[in-house]
Amino acid sequence: MEGPRVQHVVLASGGLDSTVCLALAQRDGGTAPLALSFDYGQRHAVELERAAAVCARYGAEQLVVSIDARAWGGSALTDPDIEVPAPTGSVSSVPIPTTYVPARNSIFLAVALGVAEARGAEAVYLGVNAVDYSGYPDCRPVFVEAFRRVAEVGQRRGLEGHPVDIRAPLIEASKADIVRLGTELGAPLELTWSCYREGPRPCRGCDACDLRARGFAAAGLADPALAV
Amino acid sequence: MEGPRVQHVVLASGGLDSTVCLALAQRDGGTAPLALSFDYGQRHAVELERAAAVCARYGAEQLVVSIDARAWGGSALTDPDIEVPAPTGSVSSVPIPTTYVPARNSIFLAVALGVAEARGAEAVYLGVNAVDYSGYPDCRPVFVEAFRRVAEVGQRRGLEGHPVDIRAPLIEASKADIVRLGTELGAPLELTWSCYREGPRPCRGCDACDLRARGFAAAGLADPALAV
Repeated sequence: MEGPRVQHVVLASGGLDSTVCLALAQRDGGTAPLALSFDYGQRHAVELERAAAVCARYGAEQLVVSIDARAWGGSALTDPDIEVPAPTGSVSSVPIPTTYVPARNSIFLAVALGVAEARGAEAVYLGVNAVDYSGYPDCRPVFVEAFRRVAEVGQRRGLEGHPVDIRAPLIEASKADIVRLGTELGAPLELTWSCYREGPRPCRGCDACDLRARGFAAAGLADPALAV
Repeated sequence: MEGPRVQHVVLASGGLDSTVCLALAQRDGGTAPLALSFDYGQRHAVELERAAAVCARYGAEQLVVSIDARAWGGSALTDPDIEVPAPTGSVSSVPIPTTYVPARNSIFLAVALGVAEARGAEAVYLGVNAVDYSGYPDCRPVFVEAFRRVAEVGQRRGLEGHPVDIRAPLIEASKADIVRLGTELGAPLELTWSCYREGPRPCRGCDACDLRARGFAAAGLADPALAV
């Protein structure tokens, strides 16, 4: 095993949801979690830098795993031939958005389970939420439940009777709920990045920017990332 | 989507089991499958070369996805600090071997599901078998079943009513069965590599070499890889 034991592993994308999730894991564990980020050929590599900045704030170790999703393409987020779409009002208003990356959360969770087992972590936290992202099949409770079964039967830890737990504490939360919770927890929301496009500043013209803006508005709060 | 549609995706490690699996996928589909290999920091990189040689024989495209499992360690196959063990008579005779790589098959299958979806494939084939490898939790039917559920609920294809199928046709086969089947199918067993250590020739001193030798012996056949 490389590296010390950790209490929790958090999938950290540098976005709003995963940053609030990291704050929750820190609160629940009373110690800095291990943040797991992926370099998967995404357009918006700025998210890795933001995730690193969030980790620095919490004194959390960041493990960046590279895996090249461009090798198979199929998403507007990784394939330069597919346009990032204009906002539709809600990600869930189209059957499945072109920003869907085939099996992305399965891949991220599978790696997280491996890391959690190797580092002795009790649980993996991920910031999926079903309310705003019901267009993505791998952001739903039924998906998380299916992966819990994988952890139970597919790992040493599961066979030994204490499977790595998979926690999706925001899965029933609205974006406004997440904004409020993050603010209460003192999470560094000003460091987070949601935009599907490259920086230096959020485009305010994609679905992710739109959802974020509506979340802050509904929470009655200003987005600190836009004030920086 | 990058690359043409394929009928089947096969997890191809260059070993005996996955090569026989590839031969089955080719037979079932009547067309060359897409072979998916992983460069995950394994000691025995020779397996990637052997997988490539097998693909060349079938005219199959090989997609090599790099993911660095050494980043988290935890296995004798990826961590230079853990010794590859001497044969125990059977991999399943110890609780879980040190050659277990945390969540390896979950990671491989998750990526395979992504590739299958992006390339329009009907099914993923993997060569796990429970008989000889019951020491590995992620080689059992219950694990494959759990992952089928992930494909059903976690992917666009599943939501559309035709999930990527996961086929483990060798899961109940003994090593001798696999040797016989591969021979019947004319699979290039002489190109396959099973040894846990680096080449140029199999060490004949690890569990994988031992299992393979006993499989050929039980099938009453000579191992063509040793004659090369």
